[in-house]
Amino acid sequence: MATDLDTHLRLKAECFQVTGSFKPRGAFNAVLSLVDRTGSPAHPSHPAGVIAVSSGNHAQAVALAARTVGLPALILIPDDANPAKVAATRALGAEVIQKGITFANREQRLREVMAERGFSLVHPFDDWDVIHGQGTAAMEMLEDEPAIEVIATPVGGGGLLSGSAIAAKSHSGSIKVIGVEPETADDAYQSWKTGSVQTLPMAPVTLADGVRTTAIGQRNFEVMFANRLVDEIVTVTEEEIASALRVGWTRLHIALEPTGALPLAAHLSGKLTKGRTGLVISGGNANLETVAKLLTHP
Amino acid sequence: MATDLDTHLRLKAECFQVTGSFKPRGAFNAVLSLVDRTGSPAHPSHPAGVIAVSSGNHAQAVALAARTVGLPALILIPDDANPAKVAATRALGAEVIQKGITFANREQRLREVMAERGFSLVHPFDDWDVIHGQGTAAMEMLEDEPAIEVIATPVGGGGLLSGSAIAAKSHSGSIKVIGVEPETADDAYQSWKTGSVQTLPMAPVTLADGVRTTAIGQRNFEVMFANRLVDEIVTVTEEEIASALRVGWTRLHIALEPTGALPLAAHLSGKLTKGRTGLVISGGNANLETVAKLLTHP
Repeated sequence: MATDLDTHLRLKAECFQVTGSFKPRGAFNAVLSLVDRTGSPAHPSHPAGVIAVSSGNHAQAVALAARTVGLPALILIPDDANPAKVAATRALGAEVIQKGITFANREQRLREVMAERGFSLVHPFDDWDVIHGQGTAAMEMLEDEPAIEVIATPVGGGGLLSGSAIAAKSHSGSIKVIGVEPETADDAYQSWKTGSVQTLPMAPVTLADGVRTTAIGQRNFEVMFANRLVDEIVTVTEEEIASALRVGWTRLHIALEPTGALPLAAHLSGKLTKGRTGLVISGGNANLETVAKLLTHP
Repeated sequence: MATDLDTHLRLKAECFQVTGSFKPRGAFNAVLSLVDRTGSPAHPSHPAGVIAVSSGNHAQAVALAARTVGLPALILIPDDANPAKVAATRALGAEVIQKGITFANREQRLREVMAERGFSLVHPFDDWDVIHGQGTAAMEMLEDEPAIEVIATPVGGGGLLSGSAIAAKSHSGSIKVIGVEPETADDAYQSWKTGSVQTLPMAPVTLADGVRTTAIGQRNFEVMFANRLVDEIVTVTEEEIASALRVGWTRLHIALEPTGALPLAAHLSGKLTKGRTGLVISGGNANLETVAKLLTHP
Protein backbone atom coordinates (compact mmCIF):
# COMPACT_ATOMS: atom_id res chain seq x y z
CA MET A 1 0.00 0.00 0.00
CA ALA A 2 0.99 3.63 -0.50
CA THR A 3 1.01 6.26 2.27
CA ASP A 4 0.95 10.05 2.46
CA LEU A 5 4.08 9.91 4.64
CA ASP A 6 6.40 9.65 1.63
CA THR A 7 5.20 9.18 -1.95
CA HIS A 8 8.09 6.81 -2.76
CA LEU A 9 7.34 4.46 0.13
CA ARG A 10 5.41 1.22 -0.24
CA LEU A 11 4.28 -1.02 2.62
CA LYS A 12 3.44 -4.69 2.61
CA ALA A 13 1.17 -4.67 5.66
CA GLU A 14 1.25 -8.26 6.85
CA CYS A 15 -0.84 -7.40 9.91
CA PHE A 16 -3.79 -7.80 7.49
CA GLN A 17 -2.80 -11.40 6.78
CA VAL A 18 -4.86 -14.19 8.47
CA THR A 19 -3.77 -14.56 12.13
CA GLY A 20 -2.26 -11.05 11.94
CA SER A 21 1.27 -11.74 10.66
CA PHE A 22 3.30 -13.04 7.68
CA LYS A 23 3.86 -16.38 9.46
CA PRO A 24 1.08 -18.36 7.67
CA ARG A 25 3.01 -17.96 4.39
CA GLY A 26 5.82 -20.18 5.63
CA ALA A 27 3.65 -22.44 7.79
CA PHE A 28 1.25 -23.21 4.94
CA ASN A 29 4.09 -23.86 2.51
CA ALA A 30 5.77 -26.21 5.00
CA VAL A 31 2.62 -28.11 6.00
CA LEU A 32 1.31 -28.43 2.44
CA SER A 33 4.74 -29.57 1.23
CA LEU A 34 4.91 -32.22 3.99
CA VAL A 35 1.55 -33.59 2.89
CA ASP A 36 2.37 -33.35 -0.83
CA ARG A 37 5.66 -35.23 -0.53
CA THR A 38 4.07 -38.22 1.16
CA GLY A 39 0.94 -38.38 -0.98
CA SER A 40 -2.02 -40.03 0.78
CA PRO A 41 -2.42 -40.58 4.54
CA ALA A 42 -1.76 -44.30 3.80
CA HIS A 43 1.88 -43.51 2.89
CA PRO A 44 4.22 -44.79 5.64
CA SER A 45 5.90 -41.39 6.13
CA HIS A 46 2.72 -39.31 5.92
CA PRO A 47 2.91 -37.05 8.99
CA ALA A 48 0.77 -38.06 11.98
CA GLY A 49 0.67 -34.38 12.88
CA VAL A 50 2.84 -31.29 13.09
CA ILE A 51 4.61 -29.73 16.01
CA ALA A 52 6.04 -26.28 16.65
CA VAL A 53 7.68 -24.37 19.47
CA SER A 54 6.53 -20.78 19.66
CA SER A 55 5.04 -18.26 22.01
CA GLY A 56 4.00 -15.97 19.21
CA ASN A 57 2.83 -15.61 15.64
CA HIS A 58 4.33 -18.88 14.36
CA ALA A 59 2.13 -20.85 16.79
CA GLN A 60 -1.12 -19.52 15.34
CA ALA A 61 0.15 -19.90 11.78
CA VAL A 62 1.04 -23.58 12.23
CA ALA A 63 -2.25 -24.25 14.03
CA LEU A 64 -4.20 -22.72 11.14
CA ALA A 65 -2.19 -24.51 8.44
CA ALA A 66 -2.58 -27.88 10.17
CA ARG A 67 -6.31 -27.42 10.71
CA THR A 68 -6.69 -26.46 7.04
CA VAL A 69 -5.18 -29.77 5.83
CA GLY A 70 -6.80 -31.83 8.61
CA LEU A 71 -3.67 -32.70 10.59
CA PRO A 72 -3.38 -32.45 14.37
CA ALA A 73 -1.08 -29.67 15.60
CA LEU A 74 0.81 -29.64 18.87
CA ILE A 75 2.39 -26.39 20.01
CA LEU A 76 4.89 -26.06 22.87
CA ILE A 77 4.52 -22.65 24.47
CA PRO A 78 6.68 -21.49 27.39
CA ASP A 79 4.86 -21.35 30.73
CA ASP A 80 5.12 -17.56 31.05
CA ALA A 81 3.68 -16.71 27.60
CA ASN A 82 0.90 -14.18 27.02
CA PRO A 83 -2.40 -16.02 27.84
CA ALA A 84 -4.14 -14.24 24.94
CA LYS A 85 -1.74 -15.85 22.46
CA VAL A 86 -2.22 -19.27 24.06
CA ALA A 87 -6.00 -18.87 23.79
CA ALA A 88 -5.75 -17.77 20.14
CA THR A 89 -3.64 -20.85 19.31
CA ARG A 90 -6.12 -23.18 21.05
CA ALA A 91 -9.00 -21.46 19.27
CA LEU A 92 -7.40 -22.55 15.99
CA GLY A 93 -7.72 -26.18 17.09
CA ALA A 94 -4.15 -26.85 18.23
CA GLU A 95 -3.20 -28.81 21.32
CA VAL A 96 -0.99 -26.62 23.52
CA ILE A 97 1.54 -27.96 26.02
CA GLN A 98 2.69 -25.32 28.47
CA LYS A 99 3.33 -27.16 31.74
CA GLY A 100 7.03 -27.22 32.55
CA ILE A 101 8.06 -25.65 29.22
CA THR A 102 10.70 -22.94 29.63
CA PHE A 103 12.72 -20.92 27.15
CA ALA A 104 15.75 -23.01 28.20
CA ASN A 105 14.35 -26.56 28.06
CA ARG A 106 11.97 -26.22 25.13
CA GLU A 107 14.26 -27.72 22.46
CA GLN A 108 14.82 -30.81 24.64
CA ARG A 109 11.09 -31.20 25.37
CA LEU A 110 10.40 -30.77 21.66
CA ARG A 111 12.59 -33.74 20.73
CA GLU A 112 10.96 -35.88 23.43
CA VAL A 113 7.43 -35.07 22.29
CA MET A 114 8.34 -35.58 18.60
CA ALA A 115 9.68 -39.04 19.44
CA GLU A 116 6.58 -39.94 21.50
CA ARG A 117 4.04 -38.84 18.90
CA GLY A 118 5.81 -39.16 15.56
CA PHE A 119 4.86 -35.61 14.60
CA SER A 120 6.84 -33.56 12.05
CA LEU A 121 8.51 -30.33 13.10
CA VAL A 122 7.66 -27.00 11.45
CA HIS A 123 10.67 -24.90 12.37
CA PRO A 124 9.94 -21.15 12.60
CA PHE A 125 12.83 -20.14 10.30
CA ASP A 126 15.58 -22.72 9.66
CA ASP A 127 13.60 -24.67 7.04
CA TRP A 128 13.61 -24.29 3.25
CA ASP A 129 9.83 -24.57 2.86
CA VAL A 130 9.31 -21.94 5.54
CA ILE A 131 11.92 -19.65 3.98
CA HIS A 132 10.34 -19.96 0.52
CA GLY A 133 6.87 -19.33 1.93
CA GLN A 134 7.94 -16.20 3.80
CA GLY A 135 9.47 -14.88 0.57
CA THR A 136 6.04 -14.56 -1.03
CA ALA A 137 5.34 -11.29 0.83
CA ALA A 138 8.23 -9.54 -0.92
CA MET A 139 7.33 -11.31 -4.17
CA GLU A 140 3.79 -9.91 -4.06
CA MET A 141 5.06 -6.43 -3.20
CA LEU A 142 7.40 -6.54 -6.21
CA GLU A 143 4.57 -7.73 -8.46
CA ASP A 144 2.57 -4.68 -7.34
CA GLU A 145 5.55 -2.30 -7.50
CA PRO A 146 8.24 -3.66 -9.83
CA ALA A 147 10.36 -0.50 -9.57
CA ILE A 148 11.21 -0.89 -5.87
CA GLU A 149 14.95 -0.41 -5.30
CA VAL A 150 15.28 -1.11 -1.56
CA ILE A 151 13.45 -3.74 0.52
CA ALA A 152 13.65 -3.82 4.30
CA THR A 153 12.24 -6.47 6.65
CA PRO A 154 12.67 -7.29 10.34
CA VAL A 155 15.20 -10.01 11.16
CA GLY A 156 14.89 -12.43 14.08
CA GLY A 157 15.73 -16.00 13.10
CA GLY A 158 15.98 -14.85 9.49
CA GLY A 159 13.06 -16.69 7.85
CA LEU A 160 11.38 -13.56 6.52
CA LEU A 161 14.62 -11.84 5.57
CA SER A 162 16.17 -14.81 3.75
CA GLY A 163 12.91 -15.55 1.89
CA SER A 164 12.58 -11.88 0.95
CA ALA A 165 16.19 -11.81 -0.26
CA ILE A 166 15.63 -14.81 -2.55
CA ALA A 167 12.45 -13.24 -3.95
CA ALA A 168 13.99 -9.79 -4.38
CA LYS A 169 17.30 -10.85 -5.96
CA SER A 170 15.50 -13.14 -8.40
CA HIS A 171 13.32 -10.14 -9.38
CA SER A 172 16.37 -7.93 -9.88
CA GLY A 173 20.00 -8.35 -8.94
CA SER A 174 20.32 -4.65 -8.16
CA ILE A 175 17.67 -4.41 -5.43
CA LYS A 176 19.17 -3.69 -2.02
CA VAL A 177 17.87 -6.06 0.68
CA ILE A 178 18.21 -4.84 4.25
CA GLY A 179 17.43 -6.57 7.54
CA VAL A 180 16.46 -4.46 10.55
CA GLU A 181 16.89 -5.56 14.17
CA PRO A 182 16.92 -3.88 17.58
CA GLU A 183 20.32 -2.65 18.86
CA THR A 184 19.80 -4.88 21.90
CA ALA A 185 19.31 -7.95 19.66
CA ASP A 186 22.08 -7.44 17.13
CA ASP A 187 23.06 -11.07 16.50
CA ALA A 188 22.30 -10.80 12.77
CA TYR A 189 24.42 -7.64 12.57
CA GLN A 190 27.30 -9.45 14.31
CA SER A 191 26.87 -12.50 12.09
CA TRP A 192 27.00 -10.27 9.01
CA LYS A 193 30.11 -8.46 10.25
CA THR A 194 32.00 -11.59 11.34
CA GLY A 195 30.87 -13.89 8.53
CA SER A 196 29.67 -16.66 10.88
CA VAL A 197 26.57 -17.28 12.98
CA GLN A 198 26.86 -15.35 16.27
CA THR A 199 24.70 -16.22 19.25
CA LEU A 200 23.57 -13.77 21.93
CA PRO A 201 24.30 -14.96 25.50
CA MET A 202 20.60 -14.64 26.43
CA ALA A 203 17.24 -13.65 24.95
CA PRO A 204 17.49 -9.87 24.49
CA VAL A 205 15.20 -7.30 26.10
CA THR A 206 13.39 -5.28 23.42
CA LEU A 207 9.98 -3.87 22.56
CA ALA A 208 10.21 -5.97 19.38
CA ASP A 209 9.29 -9.26 21.06
CA GLY A 210 9.04 -11.10 17.73
CA VAL A 211 12.82 -11.00 17.17
CA ARG A 212 14.12 -12.20 20.55
CA THR A 213 15.68 -15.30 18.96
CA THR A 214 19.34 -15.46 20.03
CA ALA A 215 20.75 -16.54 16.64
CA ILE A 216 19.75 -16.80 12.99
CA GLY A 217 19.42 -20.28 11.48
CA GLN A 218 22.08 -22.10 9.46
CA ARG A 219 20.00 -22.08 6.24
CA ASN A 220 19.19 -18.43 6.82
CA PHE A 221 22.87 -17.61 7.25
CA GLU A 222 23.62 -19.46 4.04
CA VAL A 223 21.13 -17.38 2.03
CA MET A 224 21.72 -14.04 3.70
CA PHE A 225 25.50 -13.87 4.17
CA ALA A 226 27.27 -16.90 2.69
CA ASN A 227 25.50 -16.23 -0.64
CA ARG A 228 25.39 -12.47 -0.01
CA LEU A 229 21.71 -12.06 -0.92
CA VAL A 230 21.33 -9.58 1.96
CA ASP A 231 23.20 -6.33 1.50
CA GLU A 232 23.12 -4.90 4.98
CA ILE A 233 21.88 -5.29 8.55
CA VAL A 234 20.73 -2.09 10.23
CA THR A 235 20.04 -1.72 13.95
CA VAL A 236 17.53 0.64 15.57
CA THR A 237 17.15 1.88 19.14
CA GLU A 238 14.17 1.18 21.40
CA GLU A 239 13.26 4.87 21.09
CA GLU A 240 13.24 4.62 17.30
CA ILE A 241 11.01 1.52 17.48
CA ALA A 242 8.58 3.30 19.83
CA SER A 243 8.48 6.34 17.60
CA ALA A 244 7.84 4.26 14.46
CA LEU A 245 5.07 2.40 16.25
CA ARG A 246 3.40 5.73 17.05
CA VAL A 247 3.75 6.92 13.45
CA GLY A 248 2.25 3.63 12.28
CA TRP A 249 -0.76 3.83 14.57
CA THR A 250 -1.44 7.56 14.38
CA ARG A 251 -0.34 8.58 10.86
CA LEU A 252 -0.65 5.40 8.82
CA HIS A 253 -3.58 4.05 10.90
CA ILE A 254 -2.10 0.56 10.83
CA ALA A 255 -2.26 -1.25 14.17
CA LEU A 256 1.17 -2.84 13.85
CA GLU A 257 3.19 -4.64 16.53
CA PRO A 258 6.58 -3.29 17.64
CA THR A 259 8.43 -5.97 15.64
CA GLY A 260 6.49 -4.91 12.55
CA ALA A 261 7.65 -1.35 13.13
CA LEU A 262 11.37 -2.21 12.78
CA PRO A 263 11.71 -1.42 9.03
CA LEU A 264 9.65 1.75 9.47
CA ALA A 265 11.96 2.76 12.34
CA ALA A 266 15.00 2.34 10.09
CA HIS A 267 13.31 4.31 7.31
CA LEU A 268 12.19 7.18 9.57
CA SER A 269 15.60 7.50 11.17
CA GLY A 270 17.27 7.75 7.75
CA LYS A 271 19.23 4.52 8.15
CA LEU A 272 18.13 2.86 4.89
CA THR A 273 19.82 3.25 1.50
CA LYS A 274 17.94 5.95 -0.46
CA GLY A 275 15.61 4.97 -3.32
CA ARG A 276 12.10 3.63 -3.94
CA THR A 277 11.58 1.68 -0.76
CA GLY A 278 9.32 -1.22 0.18
CA LEU A 279 8.92 -2.14 3.85
CA VAL A 280 7.54 -5.46 5.02
CA ILE A 281 5.44 -4.63 8.10
CA SER A 282 5.56 -8.11 9.56
CA GLY A 283 2.58 -8.22 11.89
CA GLY A 284 0.00 -6.60 14.14
CA ASN A 285 -0.35 -8.79 17.23
CA ALA A 286 0.76 -6.20 19.75
CA ASN A 287 0.61 -6.38 23.51
CA LEU A 288 -2.10 -3.81 24.20
CA GLU A 289 -0.72 -2.61 27.54
CA THR A 290 2.59 -1.82 25.83
CA VAL A 291 0.95 -0.04 22.93
CA ALA A 292 -1.38 1.96 25.18
CA LYS A 293 1.64 3.17 27.17
CA LEU A 294 3.62 4.10 24.04
CA LEU A 295 0.69 5.99 22.54
CA THR A 296 -0.14 8.07 25.58
CA HIS A 297 3.32 8.67 27.09
CA PRO A 298 5.57 9.52 24.17
CA MET B 1 -10.51 -4.99 1.82
CA ALA B 2 -11.48 -8.46 3.00
CA THR B 3 -11.02 -9.71 6.58
CA ASP B 4 -10.84 -13.09 8.29
CA LEU B 5 -13.65 -11.98 10.63
CA ASP B 6 -16.36 -12.89 8.13
CA THR B 7 -15.71 -13.97 4.55
CA HIS B 8 -18.74 -12.04 3.25
CA LEU B 9 -17.67 -8.75 4.80
CA ARG B 10 -15.89 -6.01 2.86
CA LEU B 11 -14.42 -2.84 4.35
CA LYS B 12 -13.70 0.49 2.73
CA ALA B 13 -11.02 1.63 5.17
CA GLU B 14 -11.03 5.39 4.78
CA CYS B 15 -8.52 5.80 7.60
CA PHE B 16 -5.94 5.06 4.86
CA GLN B 17 -7.11 8.10 2.86
CA VAL B 18 -4.92 11.24 2.95
CA THR B 19 -5.52 13.14 6.25
CA GLY B 20 -6.94 9.91 7.74
CA SER B 21 -10.63 10.15 6.78
CA PHE B 22 -13.08 10.17 3.83
CA LYS B 23 -13.47 13.96 4.11
CA PRO B 24 -11.00 14.94 1.33
CA ARG B 25 -13.36 13.30 -1.20
CA GLY B 26 -16.04 15.93 -0.62
CA ALA B 27 -13.65 18.78 0.11
CA PHE B 28 -11.66 18.23 -3.11
CA ASN B 29 -14.84 17.92 -5.18
CA ALA B 30 -16.22 21.14 -3.69
CA VAL B 31 -13.01 23.17 -3.99
CA LEU B 32 -12.20 21.94 -7.51
CA SER B 33 -15.80 22.61 -8.60
CA LEU B 34 -15.66 26.14 -7.18
CA VAL B 35 -12.51 26.82 -9.20
CA ASP B 36 -13.85 25.10 -12.34
CA ARG B 37 -17.10 27.06 -12.40
CA THR B 38 -15.36 30.40 -12.34
CA GLY B 39 -12.53 29.52 -14.73
CA SER B 40 -9.41 31.65 -14.21
CA PRO B 41 -8.51 33.69 -11.13
CA ALA B 42 -9.38 36.80 -13.23
CA HIS B 43 -13.09 35.82 -13.23
CA PRO B 44 -15.06 38.21 -10.96
CA SER B 45 -16.56 35.38 -8.92
CA HIS B 46 -13.39 33.28 -8.68
CA PRO B 47 -13.08 32.51 -4.97
CA ALA B 48 -10.60 34.60 -2.96
CA GLY B 49 -10.28 31.63 -0.63
CA VAL B 50 -12.30 28.97 1.13
CA ILE B 51 -13.60 28.81 4.64
CA ALA B 52 -14.85 26.00 6.83
CA VAL B 53 -16.02 25.49 10.39
CA SER B 54 -14.78 22.25 11.89
CA SER B 55 -12.92 20.86 14.84
CA GLY B 56 -12.25 17.59 13.12
CA ASN B 57 -11.56 15.77 9.89
CA HIS B 58 -13.31 18.27 7.59
CA ALA B 59 -10.84 21.01 8.66
CA GLN B 60 -7.78 19.08 7.46
CA ALA B 61 -9.54 17.99 4.28
CA VAL B 62 -10.46 21.57 3.28
CA ALA B 63 -6.97 22.80 4.17
CA LEU B 64 -5.39 20.14 1.93
CA ALA B 65 -7.81 20.73 -0.97
CA ALA B 66 -7.26 24.50 -0.85
CA ARG B 67 -3.48 24.16 -0.68
CA THR B 68 -3.58 21.78 -3.65
CA VAL B 69 -5.33 24.33 -5.88
CA GLY B 70 -3.39 27.29 -4.45
CA LEU B 71 -6.25 29.00 -2.60
CA PRO B 72 -5.99 30.33 0.95
CA ALA B 73 -8.04 28.40 3.52
CA LEU B 74 -9.45 29.79 6.74
CA ILE B 75 -10.77 27.35 9.33
CA LEU B 76 -12.83 28.31 12.38
CA ILE B 77 -12.17 25.85 15.18
CA PRO B 78 -13.87 26.07 18.58
CA ASP B 79 -11.61 27.23 21.41
CA ASP B 80 -11.75 23.94 23.30
CA ALA B 81 -10.78 21.70 20.36
CA ASN B 82 -8.02 19.08 20.50
CA PRO B 83 -4.70 20.97 20.01
CA ALA B 84 -3.34 18.09 17.89
CA LYS B 85 -6.10 18.64 15.33
CA VAL B 86 -5.47 22.40 15.28
CA ALA B 87 -1.77 21.77 14.68
CA ALA B 88 -2.50 19.26 11.89
CA THR B 89 -4.77 21.81 10.17
CA ARG B 90 -2.14 24.56 10.43
CA ALA B 91 0.52 22.14 9.14
CA LEU B 92 -1.54 21.85 5.95
CA GLY B 93 -1.16 25.59 5.41
CA ALA B 94 -4.56 26.81 6.63
CA GLU B 95 -5.12 29.89 8.74
CA VAL B 96 -6.96 28.87 11.93
CA ILE B 97 -9.15 31.21 13.97
CA GLN B 98 -9.88 29.85 17.43
CA LYS B 99 -10.10 32.87 19.71
CA GLY B 100 -13.65 33.42 20.92
CA ILE B 101 -15.10 30.67 18.72
CA THR B 102 -17.59 28.46 20.56
CA PHE B 103 -19.88 25.67 19.46
CA ALA B 104 -22.79 28.11 19.94
CA ASN B 105 -21.49 31.23 18.16
CA ARG B 106 -19.53 29.64 15.34
CA GLU B 107 -22.22 29.99 12.63
CA GLN B 108 -22.55 33.70 13.41
CA ARG B 109 -18.78 34.22 13.37
CA LEU B 110 -18.61 32.29 10.11
CA ARG B 111 -20.98 34.71 8.35
CA GLU B 112 -19.04 37.70 9.68
CA VAL B 113 -15.68 36.37 8.49
CA MET B 114 -17.10 35.36 5.10
CA ALA B 115 -18.41 38.89 4.59
CA GLU B 116 -15.07 40.45 5.64
CA ARG B 117 -12.88 38.27 3.43
CA GLY B 118 -15.11 37.27 0.53
CA PHE B 119 -14.20 33.61 1.00
CA SER B 120 -16.45 30.78 -0.19
CA LEU B 121 -17.90 28.32 2.31
CA VAL B 122 -17.20 24.60 2.07
CA HIS B 123 -20.01 23.15 4.16
CA PRO B 124 -19.17 19.82 5.82
CA PHE B 125 -22.31 18.04 4.56
CA ASP B 126 -25.20 20.22 3.30
CA ASP B 127 -23.65 20.86 -0.13
CA TRP B 128 -24.17 18.95 -3.39
CA ASP B 129 -20.49 18.92 -4.37
CA VAL B 130 -19.54 17.60 -0.95
CA ILE B 131 -22.28 14.95 -1.06
CA HIS B 132 -21.21 13.77 -4.51
CA GLY B 133 -17.56 13.66 -3.46
CA GLN B 134 -18.28 11.59 -0.35
CA GLY B 135 -20.21 9.13 -2.49
CA THR B 136 -17.04 8.06 -4.28
CA ALA B 137 -15.99 5.83 -1.34
CA ALA B 138 -19.06 3.60 -1.81
CA MET B 139 -18.67 3.85 -5.59
CA GLU B 140 -15.10 2.50 -5.40
CA MET B 141 -16.14 -0.28 -3.01
CA LEU B 142 -18.88 -1.34 -5.45
CA GLU B 143 -16.43 -1.27 -8.36
CA ASP B 144 -14.22 -3.65 -6.38
CA GLU B 145 -17.11 -5.80 -5.11
CA PRO B 146 -20.14 -5.40 -7.40
CA ALA B 147 -22.12 -8.13 -5.58
CA ILE B 148 -22.45 -6.21 -2.29
CA GLU B 149 -26.07 -6.29 -1.08
CA VAL B 150 -25.90 -4.10 2.05
CA ILE B 151 -23.88 -0.92 2.59
CA ALA B 152 -23.56 0.73 6.00
CA THR B 153 -21.91 4.06 6.83
CA PRO B 154 -21.84 6.33 9.87
CA VAL B 155 -24.31 9.23 9.84
CA GLY B 156 -23.66 12.63 11.43
CA GLY B 157 -24.71 15.51 9.19
CA GLY B 158 -25.41 12.98 6.44
CA GLY B 159 -22.81 13.90 3.81
CA LEU B 160 -21.25 10.44 3.66
CA LEU B 161 -24.54 8.58 3.97
CA SER B 162 -26.40 10.59 1.31
CA GLY B 163 -23.45 10.40 -1.11
CA SER B 164 -23.15 6.65 -0.50
CA ALA B 165 -26.90 6.22 -1.05
CA ILE B 166 -26.76 7.98 -4.44
CA ALA B 167 -23.75 5.87 -5.49
CA ALA B 168 -25.23 2.60 -4.24
CA LYS B 169 -28.75 3.03 -5.65
CA SER B 170 -27.38 4.05 -9.04
CA HIS B 171 -25.28 0.86 -8.97
CA SER B 172 -28.32 -1.28 -8.11
CA GLY B 173 -31.79 -0.37 -6.91
CA SER B 174 -31.90 -3.43 -4.66
CA ILE B 175 -28.88 -2.60 -2.46
CA LYS B 176 -29.88 -1.80 1.11
CA VAL B 177 -28.29 1.42 2.38
CA ILE B 178 -28.10 1.77 6.15
CA GLY B 179 -26.93 4.69 8.30
CA VAL B 180 -25.48 3.97 11.75
CA GLU B 181 -25.44 6.46 14.62
CA PRO B 182 -24.95 6.33 18.39
CA GLU B 183 -28.12 5.86 20.50
CA THR B 184 -27.24 9.12 22.27
CA ALA B 185 -27.12 10.99 18.92
CA ASP B 186 -30.22 9.58 17.22
CA ASP B 187 -31.38 12.66 15.30
CA ALA B 188 -31.14 10.86 11.93
CA TYR B 189 -33.17 7.98 13.34
CA GLN B 190 -35.82 10.42 14.55
CA SER B 191 -35.80 12.29 11.23
CA TRP B 192 -36.27 8.98 9.39
CA LYS B 193 -39.16 7.93 11.68
CA THR B 194 -40.96 11.29 11.62
CA GLY B 195 -40.28 12.20 7.99
CA SER B 196 -38.84 15.63 8.81
CA VAL B 197 -35.50 16.97 10.04
CA GLN B 198 -35.30 16.59 13.82
CA THR B 199 -32.75 18.52 15.87
CA LEU B 200 -31.21 17.36 19.15
CA PRO B 201 -31.46 19.94 21.97
CA MET B 202 -27.66 19.90 22.43
CA ALA B 203 -24.50 18.27 21.07
CA PRO B 204 -24.74 14.66 22.24
CA VAL B 205 -22.18 12.90 24.43
CA THR B 206 -20.71 9.90 22.61
CA LEU B 207 -17.41 8.16 21.94
CA ALA B 208 -18.13 8.77 18.25
CA ASP B 209 -17.06 12.42 18.26
CA GLY B 210 -17.34 12.73 14.48
CA VAL B 211 -21.15 12.53 14.54
CA ARG B 212 -22.00 15.05 17.26
CA THR B 213 -23.83 17.29 14.77
CA THR B 214 -27.32 18.00 16.15
CA ALA B 215 -29.20 17.62 12.85
CA ILE B 216 -28.73 16.32 9.32
CA GLY B 217 -28.69 18.86 6.48
CA GLN B 218 -31.63 19.78 4.26
CA ARG B 219 -30.04 18.36 1.08
CA ASN B 220 -29.05 15.25 3.00
CA PHE B 221 -32.62 14.80 4.22
CA GLU B 222 -33.87 15.19 0.66
CA VAL B 223 -31.61 12.39 -0.62
CA MET B 224 -31.88 10.07 2.34
CA PHE B 225 -35.54 10.22 3.34
CA ALA B 226 -37.60 12.43 0.99
CA ASN B 227 -36.30 10.38 -1.96
CA ARG B 228 -35.98 7.22 0.14
CA LEU B 229 -32.46 6.36 -1.01
CA VAL B 230 -31.62 5.28 2.54
CA ASP B 231 -33.46 2.18 3.74
CA GLU B 232 -32.87 2.30 7.46
CA ILE B 233 -31.15 4.08 10.33
CA VAL B 234 -29.71 1.81 13.02
CA THR B 235 -28.49 2.98 16.43
CA VAL B 236 -25.73 1.42 18.51
CA THR B 237 -24.83 1.73 22.19
CA GLU B 238 -21.58 3.19 23.53
CA GLU B 239 -20.62 -0.33 24.66
CA GLU B 240 -21.13 -1.64 21.12
CA ILE B 241 -18.98 1.18 19.71
CA ALA B 242 -16.19 0.44 22.23
CA SER B 243 -16.32 -3.25 21.46
CA ALA B 244 -16.18 -2.67 17.68
CA LEU B 245 -13.23 -0.33 18.14
CA ARG B 246 -11.38 -3.07 20.02
CA VAL B 247 -12.20 -5.63 17.31
CA GLY B 248 -10.96 -3.19 14.68
CA TRP B 249 -7.65 -2.50 16.43
CA THR B 250 -6.89 -6.01 17.71
CA ARG B 251 -8.42 -8.36 15.11
CA LEU B 252 -8.49 -6.31 11.92
CA HIS B 253 -5.34 -4.32 12.83
CA ILE B 254 -6.92 -1.11 11.54
CA ALA B 255 -6.36 1.90 13.78
CA LEU B 256 -9.85 3.34 13.28
CA GLU B 257 -11.51 6.15 15.24
CA PRO B 258 -14.69 5.49 17.27
CA THR B 259 -16.87 7.17 14.62
CA GLY B 260 -15.36 4.87 11.99
CA ALA B 261 -16.33 1.89 14.16
CA LEU B 262 -20.08 2.66 13.99
CA PRO B 263 -20.90 0.42 10.98
CA LEU B 264 -18.72 -2.37 12.41
CA ALA B 265 -20.59 -2.03 15.73
CA ALA B 266 -23.92 -2.45 13.94
CA HIS B 267 -22.57 -5.46 12.02
CA LEU B 268 -21.07 -7.18 15.08
CA SER B 269 -24.23 -6.70 17.12
CA GLY B 270 -26.35 -8.28 14.37
CA LYS B 271 -28.32 -5.11 13.65
CA LEU B 272 -27.72 -4.97 9.88
CA THR B 273 -29.85 -6.66 7.22
CA LYS B 274 -28.19 -9.99 6.31
CA GLY B 275 -26.31 -10.35 3.00
CA ARG B 276 -22.96 -9.51 1.42
CA THR B 277 -22.05 -6.44 3.42
CA GLY B 278 -19.77 -3.49 2.76
CA LEU B 279 -18.89 -1.16 5.64
CA VAL B 280 -17.45 2.32 5.14
CA ILE B 281 -14.92 2.75 7.97
CA SER B 282 -14.92 6.52 7.85
CA GLY B 283 -11.65 7.48 9.51
CA GLY B 284 -8.78 6.84 11.87
CA ASN B 285 -8.05 10.10 13.70
CA ALA B 286 -8.73 8.81 17.19
CA ASN B 287 -8.07 10.53 20.49
CA LEU B 288 -5.22 8.39 21.79
CA GLU B 289 -6.10 8.71 25.48
CA THR B 290 -9.59 7.39 24.72
CA VAL B 291 -8.32 4.53 22.61
CA ALA B 292 -5.64 3.55 25.15
CA LYS B 293 -8.33 3.38 27.85
CA LEU B 294 -10.67 1.29 25.68
CA LEU B 295 -7.92 -1.14 24.70
CA THR B 296 -6.61 -1.81 28.18
CA HIS B 297 -9.82 -1.66 30.25
CA PRO B 298 -12.41 -3.57 28.26
